[in-house]
Amino acid sequence: MAADDETPNPARAVSKSRMEAFSDGVLAIAITLLVLDLAVHPPGSPLRQFLQGWPSYVAYGVSFLTIGAAWVAHNALTDRLDRSDSILLRLNLVFLLVVAFLPFPTRLVAESLHDTTDAKRVAVVVYGLTLLAIRLTFYALDVYSRREHLRLPGADDPDLQEERRKFRFVVVGYTITILVGLVLPVAAVVLYFGIAVFLVVPFRTVTQLLFGKHPQ
Amino acid sequence: MAADDETPNPARAVSKSRMEAFSDGVLAIAITLLVLDLAVHPPGSPLRQFLQGWPSYVAYGVSFLTIGAAWVAHNALTDRLDRSDSILLRLNLVFLLVVAFLPFPTRLVAESLHDTTDAKRVAVVVYGLTLLAIRLTFYALDVYSRREHLRLPGADDPDLQEERRKFRFVVVGYTITILVGLVLPVAAVVLYFGIAVFLVVPFRTVTQLLFGKHPQ
Amino acid sequence: MAADDETPNPARAVSKSRMEAFSDGVLAIAITLLVLDLAVHPPGSPLRQFLQGWPSYVAYGVSFLTIGAAWVAHNALTDRLDRSDSILLRLNLVFLLVVAFLPFPTRLVAESLHDTTDAKRVAVVVYGLTLLAIRLTFYALDVYSRREHLRLPGADDPDLQEERRKFRFVVVGYTITILVGLVLPVAAVVLYFGIAVFLVVPFRTVTQLLFGKHPQ
Amino acid sequence: MAADDETPNPARAVSKSRMEAFSDGVLAIAITLLVLDLAVHPPGSPLRQFLQGWPSYVAYGVSFLTIGAAWVAHNALTDRLDRSDSILLRLNLVFLLVVAFLPFPTRLVAESLHDTTDAKRVAVVVYGLTLLAIRLTFYALDVYSRREHLRLPGADDPDLQEERRKFRFVVVGYTITILVGLVLPVAAVVLYFGIAVFLVVPFRTVTQLLFGKHPQ
Repeated sequence: MAADDETPNPARAVSKSRMEAFSDGVLAIAITLLVLDLAVHPPGSPLRQFLQGWPSYVAYGVSFLTIGAAWVAHNALTDRLDRSDSILLRLNLVFLLVVAFLPFPTRLVAESLHDTTDAKRVAVVVYGLTLLAIRLTFYALDVYSRREHLRLPGADDPDLQEERRKFRFVVVGYTITILVGLVLPVAAVVLYFGIAVFLVVPFRTVTQLLFGKHPQ
Repeated sequence: MAADDETPNPARAVSKSRMEAFSDGVLAIAITLLVLDLAVHPPGSPLRQFLQGWPSYVAYGVSFLTIGAAWVAHNALTDRLDRSDSILLRLNLVFLLVVAFLPFPTRLVAESLHDTTDAKRVAVVVYGLTLLAIRLTFYALDVYSRREHLRLPGADDPDLQEERRKFRFVVVGYTITILVGLVLPVAAVVLYFGIAVFLVVPFRTVTQLLFGKHPQ
Repeated sequence: MAADDETPNPARAVSKSRMEAFSDGVLAIAITLLVLDLAVHPPGSPLRQFLQGWPSYVAYGVSFLTIGAAWVAHNALTDRLDRSDSILLRLNLVFLLVVAFLPFPTRLVAESLHDTTDAKRVAVVVYGLTLLAIRLTFYALDVYSRREHLRLPGADDPDLQEERRKFRFVVVGYTITILVGLVLPVAAVVLYFGIAVFLVVPFRTVTQLLFGKHPQ
Repeated sequence: MAADDETPNPARAVSKSRMEAFSDGVLAIAITLLVLDLAVHPPGSPLRQFLQGWPSYVAYGVSFLTIGAAWVAHNALTDRLDRSDSILLRLNLVFLLVVAFLPFPTRLVAESLHDTTDAKRVAVVVYGLTLLAIRLTFYALDVYSRREHLRLPGADDPDLQEERRKFRFVVVGYTITILVGLVLPVAAVVLYFGIAVFLVVPFRTVTQLLFGKHPQ
C-alpha cells in the first residue's frame, strides 16, 4: 500500500507483492511442466532408446535455462519496483503468456529432431520466435516501469543491469539463429543452447569470484 | 490477525494471506496447464499441421486472458480486504473450482473445431457457461465481502471498479454469445475472444496514458 | 524466528512460513491437476458423450471439495501455530503425500464407472481409503501440535473447531461407505459426495448468517 | 533488503524471499506431478491390475520422500540465510533443474519394472544418478553460502546439521546402489527406498521424543 505515503496517483498504486507471487507461480510451473515432455525414443536396446531421447533433453535444458534466466531478470526488476499499476499488471500478463507458452514449442523441437528437415525447420523457427518474444516482452516491462517512474530510487540490481547489457546481443543472436534454423535446424538448436547459457551465466560476478576482485 | 484490534466477532477474523497464496497458486497453475492441450493438427506438411492447430491457439488465448482478468480482479478485491471469514473462504473455493475447471472446456473447444458442427455446439456452449460462471462466482465474492463489511475503508481499487462497470456488459455478452454458439459456433469463439480482450484492457487507464490526462 | 524470544528449545523452533508456502503449493497443484482427468466418454452424439462423462465430473467435485476442506482445516491449524519443529514438518510431508496421491484414485473411480462392477469396487475402496487417510494424517498433525505446545495461546480457529467436531462422524462415515462400496460401488460415490459437502459447509456460521444470531 | 544496514557489497545483496518462493513452487510442483505417472498394470482382474501397479507406487514413494527431504534441507538452509547473491541464485537454479528432472527417471523406473532386465538396469542407473545429483547440487549450495558468508551468525538449523551428518553416508549409499543396480536392479530400488527413509527421518529428534531427553 505504497499509496498511503505518496498519494499523487492512488489509482496507480497497486500492491506489487501478489504480482510477484503470481509470476513466481507461473514461472515455476512452466519450468517444471517441461519434464512431462521428456521421453525415450524407440526402437533399439533400452540404453540406445534412452540415448536417442537426447533431443528432448537438449530442449529441456535450453527451455529450463531460458525460463530460469527470465525469472532471475524478473526478480531483479520487481525487487527494485516501488509499486505496480494497471498497465504493468497487463504487460506482466503478456510476458507470462509467452513464458507459459514455451513448453509447447519445446515439445515441437524435441519431437521434430527425429522427423524430416521440414518439420525441424518449422519447430526451430517457432521455438526461436517464442524465445525472442520472451526477451521483448520483458524489455517492455523494463522500459515501461522506468518511463512511469515505478522504480525505487537508487542503482538497479546488478542482475538487471547485466540483462540490459546482454539484451542487444541476445536479440541479434536469436534473429540470426532463426535464419540459420531455416537452413540448418540442428545447428540452430545448438546456438539456442549457447544463448541460454550466455543469458544465465553472470560473467562479471564470475570474473570477480575467480580473480578475487571484490568491489568494495 | 486483524481480530485483535477489532474483536466484534473473532470467529470471523481469519487471516487473508493464505487465501491469497492458495488462490494465486490455483490461478497460476490453471493458467499454465492450458499449454498441455496445445497441439498441431495432422495431416499435411509440418507448416500446414502447425497452422491447422489454430483452434487450440485461439482457445489458449481466450482462456489465458480470461483467467488473467480473473486474477487481476481477484487481486484488486483482496488487496482492499481487511479480513476473511469462513463463508468467504468457501465462496472463494467455489470460484477457484470453476476457474480450475476451465482447461477442460478449453480442450473441448480446441478439439471440436476440426469436428462436426454438433460437437462444436456442445463445446462452445459448455465453454461459455464456464466463462459465465467465473464472472458470477467472482461477483458473489465481491457482493458478500461488501455486505459483511470485510473491506478496508476507503475507495476500492480502480481495477475492481472497472470490473464492476464491465460486469453487466460481460454477462449480457456471454449470454448472447452462448445463444449465437447454438447456431454459429465458430462465430461464438471469435466473440469470446473479443470479450476476453474487453475484460483485460483497462480502458480508462489506457485513455489517460494516451491523452496524458493523469488524474491528480 | 520465534526462537529468539522463547529459547527453551531452539532445536525445535523452525520457521513456519515456508511450511505454509510449500503446503499451499502442493494443495493448490493437487486440486488443479484434477482437471487433467476430466474426459468425455464415447460413443454417441457429442452431447451424449459429454453427458456420459458424468463420473469424471462427480469424482472431480468430490476430490476438489475434499482437498478444499483439507486446505481450510490446514489453514486454520497453521494460523494458530506458534512455530513448527522437525517432526511436524515430516508429519506434514506425510499429509501432503496422501493429498498429492488423491488424483490417482480419483482417476480410477472416473474410469471405473463405465467398467465392470469388480473394477468399480477396487476403485471405490482405494478412493475411500485415501480420503480416510487424508483425515487421519491431518488429525495426527492436530494432535501432535497440541501435545508439543506448538500453538499460540488462545482459542482455536472456528474452522479448526468445526473440523474436530466433524472428525468422528467423518471417520465413521468413510468406514461405512467403504463397506457399502464393496457391495454397491455407485452408492458409495454418492455417499463420498455427501461427506465432502458435509466437510466443506460451515454449518454454525451458515446458521448464524441465516438467522442473524451474530455471536457478540 | 539486507543491503541497507550492511552495504559492504550491494551488488551481492539480493533479496532471498523470492528465491524461497520460486524454489518452494518448483519443489511443490515436482513433488505433485509425480502422481501423473501412477498407473495400474493390465492384464488381469481389476484388483490384480491395481496390485501389479506396485512399481509405480514404490517409485512414487521414493521420489516423494527424496524431494520432501530436499525441501526440508533447502528450507533449513535458506532459513539461516542472511541474503542471496547472483551466483547462489544460479546454483539454486541448477539444484532445481535436477529436482524438476526427477519425475522423468521416476517414470522410467516405474515402467521398466515390468520390462526386461536391460531396461531395468538403464532406468535404475539413471534414477540413481539423478538422486545423487540432487544431493551434490544441494551440497554445493551449502558450501558456497558458507564460503561467501551469506549466513546469519549463530548455530545452523538442526535439520541442516542432520543433512550434513548424513551427507557422506548418502553419497556412498547411492554410489553402491548404482553399482548394485547394474546387477540386481530390483534390489537397487529397495535400497533407494531405504536411503529415502533414512534421509527423511530425523533420528536425533525421534530419539529425544521417545526417551524424553529434551535438550534444555
